[in-house]
Amino acid sequence: VVDAFLDEVRGRLGPQGVVTDPDVLRTHSVDWTGRWAGRTPAVLRPAGTAEVAEVVRSARRHAVALVPQGGRTGLVGGSVPLRGEVLVDLRRLDRLDPVDAAAGQVTVGAGVTLQRLQDHVAAAGWAFGVDIGARGTATLGGMVATNAGGNHVVRYGSMRHQVLGLEAVLGTGEVLAANLAGLVKDNTGFDLAGLLCGSEGTLGIVTAARLALVAPVAEAATALVGYRTIGDAVAAAATLRRAPDLHALELVLGPGLDLVAAHQQAPVPLAPTPPAALLVEVASSRAGSDLAAQLAAAVAGGPEPAGAAVATTAPDRARLWGWREAHPEVAAGLGIVHKADVTLPAAATARFLDEVPALVERCAPGATTLLYGHLGDGNLHVNVVGPDPDDDGPIDAVLDLVLALDGSVSAEHGIGTAKVAWLERQRGAVAVSAMAAVRRALDPDGVLNPAVLTPRT
Amino acid sequence: VVDAFLDEVRGRLGPQGVVTDPDVLRTHSVDWTGRWAGRTPAVLRPAGTAEVAEVVRSARRHAVALVPQGGRTGLVGGSVPLRGEVLVDLRRLDRLDPVDAAAGQVTVGAGVTLQRLQDHVAAAGWAFGVDIGARGTATLGGMVATNAGGNHVVRYGSMRHQVLGLEAVLGTGEVLAANLAGLVKDNTGFDLAGLLCGSEGTLGIVTAARLALVAPVAEAATALVGYRTIGDAVAAAATLRRAPDLHALELVLGPGLDLVAAHQQAPVPLAPTPPAALLVEVASSRAGSDLAAQLAAAVAGGPEPAGAAVATTAPDRARLWGWREAHPEVAAGLGIVHKADVTLPAAATARFLDEVPALVERCAPGATTLLYGHLGDGNLHVNVVGPDPDDDGPIDAVLDLVLALDGSVSAEHGIGTAKVAWLERQRGAVAVSAMAAVRRALDPDGVLNPAVLTPRT
Repeated sequence: VVDAFLDEVRGRLGPQGVVTDPDVLRTHSVDWTGRWAGRTPAVLRPAGTAEVAEVVRSARRHAVALVPQGGRTGLVGGSVPLRGEVLVDLRRLDRLDPVDAAAGQVTVGAGVTLQRLQDHVAAAGWAFGVDIGARGTATLGGMVATNAGGNHVVRYGSMRHQVLGLEAVLGTGEVLAANLAGLVKDNTGFDLAGLLCGSEGTLGIVTAARLALVAPVAEAATALVGYRTIGDAVAAAATLRRAPDLHALELVLGPGLDLVAAHQQAPVPLAPTPPAALLVEVASSRAGSDLAAQLAAAVAGGPEPAGAAVATTAPDRARLWGWREAHPEVAAGLGIVHKADVTLPAAATARFLDEVPALVERCAPGATTLLYGHLGDGNLHVNVVGPDPDDDGPIDAVLDLVLALDGSVSAEHGIGTAKVAWLERQRGAVAVSAMAAVRRALDPDGVLNPAVLTPRT
Repeated sequence: VVDAFLDEVRGRLGPQGVVTDPDVLRTHSVDWTGRWAGRTPAVLRPAGTAEVAEVVRSARRHAVALVPQGGRTGLVGGSVPLRGEVLVDLRRLDRLDPVDAAAGQVTVGAGVTLQRLQDHVAAAGWAFGVDIGARGTATLGGMVATNAGGNHVVRYGSMRHQVLGLEAVLGTGEVLAANLAGLVKDNTGFDLAGLLCGSEGTLGIVTAARLALVAPVAEAATALVGYRTIGDAVAAAATLRRAPDLHALELVLGPGLDLVAAHQQAPVPLAPTPPAALLVEVASSRAGSDLAAQLAAAVAGGPEPAGAAVATTAPDRARLWGWREAHPEVAAGLGIVHKADVTLPAAATARFLDEVPALVERCAPGATTLLYGHLGDGNLHVNVVGPDPDDDGPIDAVLDLVLALDGSVSAEHGIGTAKVAWLERQRGAVAVSAMAAVRRALDPDGVLNPAVLTPRT
C-alpha cells in the first residue's frame, strides 16, 4: 500500500519530493529531545501548497497516514512517526513575502524558521510578538499548528493572537485560504484560522500564515524584585499584571536562585536570597520614557519588596534575565529532569507553589524540585530531579494537583502523543467528543497525525 | 410536532418557561431595525444552563428548530424566527460573578447586558475592552455569539479577544465547558471557545462566558486631524496604527463633516473643511503622562496635517467625537439609508474611498454617499441615501468592489440571514463546506439557527 502511494507521489512531486535514504529517515523520525522516536518509510518534501494537496489526496486514496513536520522542536511527540506514518517535511515551503508596512503584517510559508522571520521583519522596522528559544530551528508552520507561546505572551499573546489568516491543506485534500489578506475585522462565519492554530496538524497541514507584526522595542527596564514570601510575590504579580507597558513577568524562588548562583559562581543580586522573586520587564516602542521610574511605581503598588536589582541597558538586562533563564540548565546539571509545563488560575497559584515541594517529596523522597516560569500568564514550569528516568509518579502527582486546582496540564507545549491520557480529564468528555467530531468533519479518512490529540483508530 | 415539543418543555421548565402570548411573540419576532421579521409559535425562557440543555435535547427529539435570542440588536437578521422557529430567550441567564481581581477576569451569564457588565466591573476598578452603542440592550451571549466589535478594536480587539472561556449547550444537547477557569495559557487541543465565538448560534447556545478585563482609562487625548487628500489620511493612519497607547483611529471625509456642521449648526473645527480627517485618540491607564504631546508626536510622524483640533478633557473629547458619531444620524436625516459595513486591506483603502462615490453615482445618479468608519482596523461604513428602499444595486456594487479588493463584506455585523448570499464569494467554497461540515459535527440534527450562515435544509 505504501509503495503504491509513494510511487504515485513520486510521479507528482518528482524524485526529489520522496526521500527514502535510511539516514534521512532516521534523523527525521526522532525529535530533538530524543525521547520520542518512531520509524517511517519515507520523508516527502513538497515544494509548495499544490504539492502538499497532491500528497494529502494521494494519502486518502491509499489510506496512508501522514505526520506533518517542521523543525521537530516540539516537546510532546507530535511530529514524529510513532505509528510508522509517512512524514511530510514542510521546510521547502519557504515563502517570505515583503512586509506590508501599511498593515503591519507579513505572509510567511510554513517552512520559514522563526529566526529568519525575525531578521526579515527587523530589517523592515518591525518585530514579531512571539519569541522562543528554538527560534533558529522551529518553523512558523509548526509554531502555528502548536500555538506556540514563550516569554512575551503577557504582552502580545501566543501564536493564535498573531495569526490573522492562514492557508492549509485540510484532511479532505482541499486547500483552505482563510483571510490571507490579513483583515483585522472579517466577521463572516467561523474563525477557521483560529481553529487550525493549535490543532497540532490534525485538521489540516498549515502551508502559510498571515501574521500580525508589532512595533519593535526602543527602550526597556528590567528588575529582579525579591519578596518576603511566595504569597507576597504572587500578590505582587496580580498588581504588576496591570502595569502599563508590561513586557515580561517571571517567577523564580530562593532555592533556584541559590542553585543558579552556585552554577554561575556569582552572588544572588538580592542579599539575603529572598524566598521568591519576580523578574519584571517594561518596554516601550518609543524612546524617552522613564521606564525605570515607571517600573518602580508599578512595583510600589504591590506588597513591599525585599530588595530589587534594576537594569536598563541591554547587557545589564541580559544579566538579570540570566537568573531566570539558567534554571533549565541548572536543573539538567543535577540529573535527569522530569518536567511539567502547567498553568494555574491566579487564585490558586500560591497554594500550588506551596504544596508542590512536599507533594514531590512524598512521591520521591530526597528529590530536588525547581519551580519557576511565566507567572504573568499563570504558566509555571516544574522541574524534578531525583526519580528514575521512567518514574512518572511525581509529575503525575503534580498534574493531578493542577487539575484539582482548575489549572491546565499543558500550558504551551500541547498534547501531542505524550499527554493524550490527560486530555479528557483536562477538557471533559463533551469537549473531547466535540474535538473528535470536528476532526472527522475536516479529515474524514483520518490521514493527518492519527496518533495525536484524539487518536484515530 | 411543535405542540408535543412545547408540552415536553413546559413539563421541564414549568409554565413560566414557555410563553405563547401573541403580543410577546410578535415583539420577539422582529429585530430592532424592523427590517427582519418572522413568526414563532413560542418564546422559551430557560432559567439556567441545565434548562437550555433540556430545550435543545427536546428539540432534537421532536425535530424542532430553535433560534437563540438575546437583546435583538443585531443587524443581519440572525436572531429572529424567519422560518417559524421556536425562540430561546436567554435573558434569564443573568449570572454576574464577582470580579476575579487576581486574574482580571469575570464570569458572566449570556443574558447580562453590556451596560450591566460595564457598571459591575467599573465598580471593581476594571473596564471591559468592547463597547458598542447598543450597550443597554445587547447581551453578552449575543455579543460572544456574533463576535461584536466597536470603537476600540484597534486597542483591545473584538469580543473573541476578550473571551477566555465559555459555557455553551451544543447542538447535540451536551453542555460544553471550555476554559471557564479563564486560563490565559491552556494549550490542550482545539480552541472551542474561539470557534463558538462568532458562530452566530449555529454550533451551540452560549450560556456563559469568562471574559478578560482591562485597566480603566485614566487619561486620554483626542484630536481631529485634517489632511489635504484622502491618500494622506490613509497614509497617516498607517503610521498612527503603530502609535503607543492608540485607543481609537476613525476616518471622516469633508462632505460628511460639512453635513454634520449643518446638522449641528456649528462650524467644522478645521477651516477650511479638509477632504479627509482622522479622529485619533490615545489613552493610558496611568495618570501623569503628557498624552497630548504624545499624540502630536505620533501625528508628526505622518504626512503633514491640514489643521488639527485637540482635546484632553472629557467634554471637549466628547465634542470632537461628535464629528464622527453624528454621521449615522445625519445620514438618516437625509432619507432611507442603504448601509454596507466592510473591511478593506490597508493597501486598498485609498482606492476604495476614491472609487466608491463614482460607483454609487453610476448605479444611482444623484444619490448621496457618506463614507466613514474605524479606519484603524480597516473597517469602513458606507451610507447611501437616494435609491429606493428595495434597490440593493448600489450596495451590491460596493460589495463587489470590496471583494475585488480582497476586503470583507461584513466587518463586524456577521452574516446572519441577510448576507448568506455573499458568504461563499467571501470565504470560498472550501471554507464554506468546512463550516458546514463542522456545523453538522456539533449540531447533527440541524436544530440551531437553521437559516443562518450556512443554511440547513
